[in-house]
Amino acid sequence: MSKKLTKRSDNYSEWYNELVVKADLAENSGVRGCMVIKPYGYAIWEKMKDELDRQFKETGHQNAYFPIFVPKSMFEAEEKNAEGFAKEAAIVTHYRLKNDPDKPGKLMVDPNAKLEEELIVRPTSEAIIWSTYKRWIQSYRDLPIKINQWANVVRWEMRTRLFLRTAEFLWQEGHTAHATKAEAIAETEQMLHVYANFAEEHMAMPVLRGRKTDSERFAGAEDTLCIEALMQDGKALQAGTSHFLGQNFADAFDVKFVNKEGKQELVWGTSWGVSTRLMGALIMAHSDDAGLVLPPKLAPIHVVIIPIYKNDEQKDLVMGAASKIETELKKAGVTVKLDFDENRKPGWKFAEYELKGVPLRIAIGPRDVENNVIELARRDTQTKESVPQEGLGSYISNLLDVIQDTIYKKALTYRDEHITEVNDYNEFKEVLESKGGFISAHWDGTEETEEKIKKETKATIRCILLDNKKEEGTCMYSGKPSSERVIFAKAY
Amino acid sequence: MSKKLTKRSDNYSEWYNELVVKADLAENSGVRGCMVIKPYGYAIWEKMKDELDRQFKETGHQNAYFPIFVPKSMFEAEEKNAEGFAKEAAIVTHYRLKNDPDKPGKLMVDPNAKLEEELIVRPTSEAIIWSTYKRWIQSYRDLPIKINQWANVVRWEMRTRLFLRTAEFLWQEGHTAHATKAEAIAETEQMLHVYANFAEEHMAMPVLRGRKTDSERFAGAEDTLCIEALMQDGKALQAGTSHFLGQNFADAFDVKFVNKEGKQELVWGTSWGVSTRLMGALIMAHSDDAGLVLPPKLAPIHVVIIPIYKNDEQKDLVMGAASKIETELKKAGVTVKLDFDENRKPGWKFAEYELKGVPLRIAIGPRDVENNVIELARRDTQTKESVPQEGLGSYISNLLDVIQDTIYKKALTYRDEHITEVNDYNEFKEVLESKGGFISAHWDGTEETEEKIKKETKATIRCILLDNKKEEGTCMYSGKPSSERVIFAKAY
Repeated sequence: MSKKLTKRSDNYSEWYNELVVKADLAENSGVRGCMVIKPYGYAIWEKMKDELDRQFKETGHQNAYFPIFVPKSMFEAEEKNAEGFAKEAAIVTHYRLKNDPDKPGKLMVDPNAKLEEELIVRPTSEAIIWSTYKRWIQSYRDLPIKINQWANVVRWEMRTRLFLRTAEFLWQEGHTAHATKAEAIAETEQMLHVYANFAEEHMAMPVLRGRKTDSERFAGAEDTLCIEALMQDGKALQAGTSHFLGQNFADAFDVKFVNKEGKQELVWGTSWGVSTRLMGALIMAHSDDAGLVLPPKLAPIHVVIIPIYKNDEQKDLVMGAASKIETELKKAGVTVKLDFDENRKPGWKFAEYELKGVPLRIAIGPRDVENNVIELARRDTQTKESVPQEGLGSYISNLLDVIQDTIYKKALTYRDEHITEVNDYNEFKEVLESKGGFISAHWDGTEETEEKIKKETKATIRCILLDNKKEEGTCMYSGKPSSERVIFAKAY
Repeated sequence: MSKKLTKRSDNYSEWYNELVVKADLAENSGVRGCMVIKPYGYAIWEKMKDELDRQFKETGHQNAYFPIFVPKSMFEAEEKNAEGFAKEAAIVTHYRLKNDPDKPGKLMVDPNAKLEEELIVRPTSEAIIWSTYKRWIQSYRDLPIKINQWANVVRWEMRTRLFLRTAEFLWQEGHTAHATKAEAIAETEQMLHVYANFAEEHMAMPVLRGRKTDSERFAGAEDTLCIEALMQDGKALQAGTSHFLGQNFADAFDVKFVNKEGKQELVWGTSWGVSTRLMGALIMAHSDDAGLVLPPKLAPIHVVIIPIYKNDEQKDLVMGAASKIETELKKAGVTVKLDFDENRKPGWKFAEYELKGVPLRIAIGPRDVENNVIELARRDTQTKESVPQEGLGSYISNLLDVIQDTIYKKALTYRDEHITEVNDYNEFKEVLESKGGFISAHWDGTEETEEKIKKETKATIRCILLDNKKEEGTCMYSGKPSSERVIFAKAY
């Protein structure tokens, strides 16, 4: 398989699909809409997971695990939620296979093993979790409950793309229960900021923090907060959501508590999640025509060392120096891979690690050993320099911070240059087609207008910024009065 | 709910069921056979997971993720494996729900959304993984592949018990592919020893390392190695298995590689797994009538500090000292919880943390503060002592090692006292009923005899020890010649 990628400018979508596969991140499986996450891709996901998990625990959450199956009657209890997910539900109806009498060696579904009640493979776990919370919550003393779950979920999507939209995906889902509305709202906001800070500080990906309109809200929520990132093709990507559920699920599952005054009240809830979709966002936010560009904080390997030699004498010399450097870098807390595979030539390795987005590459040959230097190449800027071997540990450790920052600032500049204020619908359409990105415009607040704009331009309201400033204006579409701008974009 | 448990001597099985629920480890969900793993139970599982994951990576394995669904045609490709799991397969047949026209607000399976090919919810992942390996393996250069997956699996068990046997459970499954038979066998053995060492060093649970008989082998394997632990009721529990798959799955999925000589060969495979069943083993190996006993290496909390005071003045005094101790213990790398919940009395807390198996409890009152001491209670021995506050960090850190060792030695002594050599079938039956435990006896090597003994006594051959010594003898059942003893027991 050629390691060469389609150029972003030629076909962005094709570039993405090729990159995911060629950089060994993921591939389509033999199962419709389901992906295989390959070791290198999974290692990046594990880094995301570990950091998010640390932050969830730091903010007082505990992990737990709830069943993958939701009985139909439980699934349909919260009607809006059920309606929202009914059309993409994978349904277990039988629990046994038997030998097919007509086809020796083949199996068939045993018609005698039909379930009395069908089971839905969870598309999200509010139903199963709130039916459990009913058993756990009696008194204000049992509150708050702040639980997170790392799990797989299934949504039967018709058109799938690796990481961005798959029938099965991995995610975390937080589900919390509170005695007061204010506390639940504070939790919803807190977790949105955890996501936003993670995206910016670890993924090096700037995000807008906002609120969804009524029509884009999570099915069963009172309010959905979101973070929205911008990809290099000018399309937005929703990277995480945090929902204030009000008392909707408590009501549907009859979850009440006795308050300090001895009165029964319905419990307040939140839920929030990010998924392997973040992998898609990470890839599209930073990578280039040569392959993946990874921020050091999420790179499974920080530095690859490639020894270069022509004969056994040179090999001994170079490998000795390379091993010493490996040891020094490890001591400095840097994740390093010394690639001494003799089946591959240095040129092949250069291309391979470039494709895989390893932030730094050290090449070392006999002359470098003599001169006590190494050749250091940065993946993000594709620049090279000769660096003394002495003090390399701290030099590289600092440089990784610089790279993290550079990648973020580059993405931030691009994002900021792609927030355009428009006041006129024709201008809106023109900016959308020519420049793309986020468009800040006045909207009359009606679903009708939102829907018409979507139909005509494919742009949706991504969010209303959390710290939005009030500004009198008129809707660019209907001309009706508006009190604030909202953020439009075409989106993944 | 009363925190008091049924006594082990009265009803071991009831004691176990109550303990799992009352210690907040897990509970039955509203979904048949599926459990909810509660935060405290999940925290123990996370500790197991983290340590095993570390050891898998140390032995050169990488994590990845494969789809939860296996299309029926893929599932049935390796016939023995398919046959072994066909009777407990959860089957997805439809992908959409729709509004039930007869019942407003209710949903029904949409008959127009029937899948062309049914999907099996994975009971194990050999089929999906080997169908993927076919794409990944062409040359000897692509080998070995050493992958592990942390995942949920579903086996539709008719009789379920929390952690021990549930329809859905969490596990890890390693799947490796090798160029030679010897390498695959070495991998199979290596992973068995990883499991055994983990069980002994972290779970403080001694295990026998052995090989399954033909009839107990994993469906689709050439050889199944296992670790077998002994519970306090004298029943054995299979705690982990490592399978040498031969070329069975390579053959079924046509996975071949070109060797160094340019010839095509079938790939050799292994698979190995442990599951949340280990939680059941951990609980039953050490706990007592007062509740859970946890080895420190797997305890989510090492030490709980319970402040005791009667008025605000005492409270200030005691909380000041307690906080200082908390800080010192954290510095010493000890996981500590200072329980200052004012809604609960100290006596309630004592019982609660005893039930939850926290290895050490510190109680501190005004007089202790004056005397610069604390009261330290060990969970495993239920002994108390007064200990100076000075140097408490290192004292407790050492004591945790002592406790880990004490728990292991206690379990080892019990296990060793419960391996009985017998030479006669009547003696076998008597020992089995009166004493229980492992019984070492001669067997003629036939499935027929194995089956008859199982039918008559409910005992099965747990394993043939890996380091078994050859010993001429006669089968206790048939009188036929035998060249080695095997290990029998009743088992979970």
